Amino acid sequence: MLENSTRTELSAMGEFALIKHLTEHFEIKNESTLKGVGDDAAVIQYEAGKQILVSTDMLVEGVHFDLTYVPLKHLGYKSIVVNLSDIYAMNGTPRQVTVSYAASNRFSVEAMEELYAGMLVACKKYGVDLVGGDTTSSTSGLMISVTAIGECEAGQAVYRSGAKEKDLLCVSGDLGGAYMGLQLLEREKFVFKDNPKLQPDLEGNDYILERQLKPEARRDVIEYLHKIGVKPTSMIDVSDGLASEILHLCTNSEVGCELYEDKIPIDLQTYDRAREFGLDPTVCALSGGEDYELLFTVAMSDYEKLKEAKDITIIGHITAKTSGTNLVTRSGGSHPLTAQGWKAF
Amino acid sequence: MLENSTRTELSAMGEFALIKHLTEHFEIKNESTLKGVGDDAAVIQYEAGKQILVSTDMLVEGVHFDLTYVPLKHLGYKSIVVNLSDIYAMNGTPRQVTVSYAASNRFSVEAMEELYAGMLVACKKYGVDLVGGDTTSSTSGLMISVTAIGECEAGQAVYRSGAKEKDLLCVSGDLGGAYMGLQLLEREKFVFKDNPKLQPDLEGNDYILERQLKPEARRDVIEYLHKIGVKPTSMIDVSDGLASEILHLCTNSEVGCELYEDKIPIDLQTYDRAREFGLDPTVCALSGGEDYELLFTVAMSDYEKLKEAKDITIIGHITAKTSGTNLVTRSGGSHPLTAQGWKAF
Repeated sequence: MLENSTRTELSAMGEFALIKHLTEHFEIKNESTLKGVGDDAAVIQYEAGKQILVSTDMLVEGVHFDLTYVPLKHLGYKSIVVNLSDIYAMNGTPRQVTVSYAASNRFSVEAMEELYAGMLVACKKYGVDLVGGDTTSSTSGLMISVTAIGECEAGQAVYRSGAKEKDLLCVSGDLGGAYMGLQLLEREKFVFKDNPKLQPDLEGNDYILERQLKPEARRDVIEYLHKIGVKPTSMIDVSDGLASEILHLCTNSEVGCELYEDKIPIDLQTYDRAREFGLDPTVCALSGGEDYELLFTVAMSDYEKLKEAKDITIIGHITAKTSGTNLVTRSGGSHPLTAQGWKAF
Repeated sequence: MLENSTRTELSAMGEFALIKHLTEHFEIKNESTLKGVGDDAAVIQYEAGKQILVSTDMLVEGVHFDLTYVPLKHLGYKSIVVNLSDIYAMNGTPRQVTVSYAASNRFSVEAMEELYAGMLVACKKYGVDLVGGDTTSSTSGLMISVTAIGECEAGQAVYRSGAKEKDLLCVSGDLGGAYMGLQLLEREKFVFKDNPKLQPDLEGNDYILERQLKPEARRDVIEYLHKIGVKPTSMIDVSDGLASEILHLCTNSEVGCELYEDKIPIDLQTYDRAREFGLDPTVCALSGGEDYELLFTVAMSDYEKLKEAKDITIIGHITAKTSGTNLVTRSGGSHPLTAQGWKAF
């Protein structure tokens, strides 16, 4: 997994020495972090009136990631970012994370250093402090559990439940790229299994590979919306695919929607690779997960403020619940959305 | 594992339906919980001036628990309690928890219901709200990750680092019981393996079995200390054994200590069973973990307030760092403490 010539067994270091070793390069940057790693609990104090946001995710080897093609450093980066994405999706600012992992004796101290090196890059980039966690052994594989803690002004949290009829449905960035990156990596893995001498053919696919291996949380979108004075009425991050997330918003808000297929933002590389793989690019965007873009609704009255936004696309609008949740296809047909994409009768 | 005649595969329910199902009996009890399960993050707001405490633990099957003798309901209870214990050990009050698990297809929906039933009992007893989490599949076994969130008045958190020379070293309850409960369960497991027709011989061992299978967090001790107006100078919970925890306090506080063997509180059942197993009861107390008692130091001036306390024992005192961390044995000898117990030269 690693090309390091040295290998230090995890069992060679005590748990406390190991935590200290892995976290020593993490500096505390936030005033709100009063005590980080090293006691029974972290101690945090936000300014009076702030609300606390807490989100947690578990990543399991063989379920969420495949170390035959995911570098541990990227995995560390991604495991932090996907949790921060949840805090941004509440209209908040992440400030702290805790990280726990369980690793089998297949993993060395050097391997865990790589994992934490990736986490460190993410923490620095997003300005969050690592304040605690747990390390333990496992009987098989690697599991990572990250909890992100953040803050927002009282009353400023944006829930999944606030969408109203006639609101505009918006999404940041583009969709389906992370899914196509995964398809590409899976294909090369099988090619490599058949003939280990073949070098992986990944050229010209930088964008979709980065979407899969090194996703970003859309802090910039949250900051931009603050700047232009737009507060979404509802919001969620796109981790499971656009269709599934739209259904969450509509179910929680008790509304329906019309999503326009021709408005769904898809990058050219994603589009081309999907075609090569014999896949429908729209299906990749609707059902492929892990894009970590923000899906949100805004009041129609915010349209003027939003229409100049470079990286935000209006993809539909909210309707009455009785109208259902529908995809309007390029050909003009209207089909009920499902978590897997849509139902074409 | 369960005697239920029905078995519902975890894969038969979608992730969101499963979370909803497992958490439906959990009610929100704390005013500070503004939003629990069901959005990208939980939303919490403590009163102005409060500090936030965050602690997390990961429990792995085959490492931390053995389902051949640990009922899932007890495991659920314990997985919550051990995290609450960390919040109490900061002199705080736990208010919220998040729970994530990864489970292989060996586990059914009914098995997870048992796990959550135990968590529900713990949450009710300690007045904490389940506010989030993650459920996923695993390729082998069960992993549980719990994060506890709590609060304390600003300036009232008690760290591991505050012990001062001449402070009294105190511990709640008694020690070594959870370890002896584990020894007993392990013995019966092997007897059962040899002859599955033999019923386990656990009679007369209720106390040590409960210490192992259903430990409690010492909320009562924290409340009692508040009531009598004693604020510990340092504190930690006893999860890894008394010796290891004393070394944490002394290292973090840059002090030494004298621990008196004859003062270490050991229950009669623990003592008798240790002797039967050919073990030194003192070693069980020093090195056996999972008692979840509170180890703390108080200023000498608080001695009068504490001496009436029924369930708190003064087991030693803090010395200068240069004096080292020593166990004074019954015979009057002084031996350096180690994480494993002590060094008898």
